[in-house]
Amino acid sequence: MFSFEQKIRVRYAETDKMGYVYYGNYATYFEVARVEALRSLDVSYKKMEEDGIILPVYKYSNEFYKPAHYDDELIIKTFIKEMPTTKIHFHFEIINSKNELINKAEVTLVFVSLKNNKPCKPPQFLISQLSSYLK
Amino acid sequence: MFSFEQKIRVRYAETDKMGYVYYGNYATYFEVARVEALRSLDVSYKKMEEDGIILPVYKYSNEFYKPAHYDDELIIKTFIKEMPTTKIHFHFEIINSKNELINKAEVTLVFVSLKNNKPCKPPQFLISQLSSYLK
Amino acid sequence: MFSFEQKIRVRYAETDKMGYVYYGNYATYFEVARVEALRSLDVSYKKMEEDGIILPVYKYSNEFYKPAHYDDELIIKTFIKEMPTTKIHFHFEIINSKNELINKAEVTLVFVSLKNNKPCKPPQFLISQLSSYLK
Amino acid sequence: MFSFEQKIRVRYAETDKMGYVYYGNYATYFEVARVEALRSLDVSYKKMEEDGIILPVYKYSNEFYKPAHYDDELIIKTFIKEMPTTKIHFHFEIINSKNELINKAEVTLVFVSLKNNKPCKPPQFLISQLSSYLK
Repeated sequence: MFSFEQKIRVRYAETDKMGYVYYGNYATYFEVARVEALRSLDVSYKKMEEDGIILPVYKYSNEFYKPAHYDDELIIKTFIKEMPTTKIHFHFEIINSKNELINKAEVTLVFVSLKNNKPCKPPQFLISQLSSYLK
Repeated sequence: MFSFEQKIRVRYAETDKMGYVYYGNYATYFEVARVEALRSLDVSYKKMEEDGIILPVYKYSNEFYKPAHYDDELIIKTFIKEMPTTKIHFHFEIINSKNELINKAEVTLVFVSLKNNKPCKPPQFLISQLSSYLK
Repeated sequence: MFSFEQKIRVRYAETDKMGYVYYGNYATYFEVARVEALRSLDVSYKKMEEDGIILPVYKYSNEFYKPAHYDDELIIKTFIKEMPTTKIHFHFEIINSKNELINKAEVTLVFVSLKNNKPCKPPQFLISQLSSYLK
Repeated sequence: MFSFEQKIRVRYAETDKMGYVYYGNYATYFEVARVEALRSLDVSYKKMEEDGIILPVYKYSNEFYKPAHYDDELIIKTFIKEMPTTKIHFHFEIINSKNELINKAEVTLVFVSLKNNKPCKPPQFLISQLSSYLK
């Protein structure tokens, strides 16, 4: 399994009148977490796009156990448990500063070639970087 | 079953550099759709909050079949299939202008009393308004 | 002078923990207002982009007199007072349901050709549509 | 003069279909920059709210010289040039990784007491922390 931890500070813009982080804004936290997880493997999502592969989201699910609040420092844990095919599957857990698990999520994205707009294999470099963590 | 249709025009702010609606922004579409669905039953979410009940999201899942693009006019179909308990469960389908189903989602929210910050029953008025649609 | 009125309902996503519309979200309201103002003249911003002209923002200023709140129905008044050159200048006023002026803003955008990424003249059709309102 | 530098990495969520950071999202960057600037002075915006003072935005202006792009690392420079009264005035400059000035902005916020919802003096601690930088 590959895992990575990303710290995120809740912005005022991300809260809503309930005083909680708006449920739609967690998607951005998971984006930051997975991009930084890939960067820790020397894989740049930006470069992958420049090389002609985009990675739109196919499935997203999210459970909210406790709210996140303004200025909280959250740890977003990212896990990749299976070698990507034309899809890559991320698991996420959010831990607050009291060490409570407040949120769990899964995001599945599809590698899509900009040449023909069809699903494609992941970049070879990503596979080789993950191969020391995954069978 | 109770159902409702809400039209939404995609804003430039909601797109991303892929040219698609960013996956996190669908949450806002479902918010608008469920609030307007309730309003069609004469239930004001705003008034419910003023009366001391908030409705945070507990579970959210989303499948993306086709992208939505800038300026698209989308139909968000909202369905309530079961009478709410301390939770209310919404199903959503998004239809684009070519009449394609591009997205399906489910959102479960919890009625929480501001008095004690605990789950509570839904407002009686909501139950009675839904009772002609649901058993 | 050309003017146009656009109604916008404040979304929960747009509020912050202060209970106000977050100051950054007014930019989206002005986007919707100017796009619908142009549409009322049969000018499609989307089509303009497809025809090779983008319209990035060059200057933006905003004054906040009173807050906007969740579920408020706001009127965004859009004014074009001068014929566009390589730039187009919009004035905005936001009126709440008590008929109070709560916000004033100005946005200047530049017509940029995608061919050479340089400022260019506005589409002829936009000029002719505005010519009955402006000298 | 008091100044502070904050690094911000552009998120995918913040881009739009033009491939630029959406003009409304700079407001969030300036929020993060001013909050971290205050934190560097041991002033917590969160605690100030808990102590009964909120800080809504009164004026905001922004000039866009060059676009910011996905994954860019930006430096947001924050300047406080005058001692705050019932208002506090921030100047901002955004520098990209090529050391180009891409954006300039000013934000004026008002100290408002939650007791009576009226403008009030800034916290004494903020004044004393700024007094070594400002006359």
